[in-house]
Amino acid sequence: MIAGSQQLGLSLASCKSLIHIFRMQRKDLSDDKCPVARTLDRVGDWWSMLIIRDAGFGLSRFDQFQESLGIAPNMLTRRLATLVETGFLERRAYSERPPRYEYVLTKKGRDFRPVLEALKAFGEEHYPKPKTKRA
Amino acid sequence: MIAGSQQLGLSLASCKSLIHIFRMQRKDLSDDKCPVARTLDRVGDWWSMLIIRDAGFGLSRFDQFQESLGIAPNMLTRRLATLVETGFLERRAYSERPPRYEYVLTKKGRDFRPVLEALKAFGEEHYPKPKTKRA
Repeated sequence: MIAGSQQLGLSLASCKSLIHIFRMQRKDLSDDKCPVARTLDRVGDWWSMLIIRDAGFGLSRFDQFQESLGIAPNMLTRRLATLVETGFLERRAYSERPPRYEYVLTKKGRDFRPVLEALKAFGEEHYPKPKTKRA
Repeated sequence: MIAGSQQLGLSLASCKSLIHIFRMQRKDLSDDKCPVARTLDRVGDWWSMLIIRDAGFGLSRFDQFQESLGIAPNMLTRRLATLVETGFLERRAYSERPPRYEYVLTKKGRDFRPVLEALKAFGEEHYPKPKTKRA
């Protein structure tokens, strides 16, 4: 009935979000039947994914993330809070006076690595390394 | 120097976007050194990823995507145009009178499958299937 339904193969076929065919204007995907949608609902913006990536490189402090990503402070504050709330990062005090916090990957955050690896492989194939502007 | 730099392992270590440490307020990541960032720059919102997922299930027509995702028509129009422009989908006429188009995955779109597979595996582990509200 649906042409090309094998394009992404059987292993994704259990993910039948298409059966929500009468559910219009869906925004909240946190209870979606599809694990891809449930995951993207939590972490599906690139700031969040890049913060997880940088945390994987060992960045842990607010200013390190900000310098690496060039993200606006209020945006970074919000993303870090969400990543703590959703369990990807743990917030730890590393100084009492003055109070200072760092953000480190939880097990869940580390478990996100295969997604980043897959994005990396895709990017290497389809978006080859740009030439250095100042060689 | 940077604690925990092995958290995501060596294979991601070539992705040194952290060296852009003096580049503030970065928004356009299409020329980033990191293939993860370059990929997310093109496809890093969950609507795009879910459209690619649905195209992999064989959905191809505007109304099918809209019904599956519950996405606003103007949003869907924009996302489909971007996915065609960035080479993930191909737009094909399937009717001349009236003119009608369908959207099918290109090779590049199909190559995105490992990312979706990784998101699926992560979601299955960390966001277990929600209980059906009407059992």
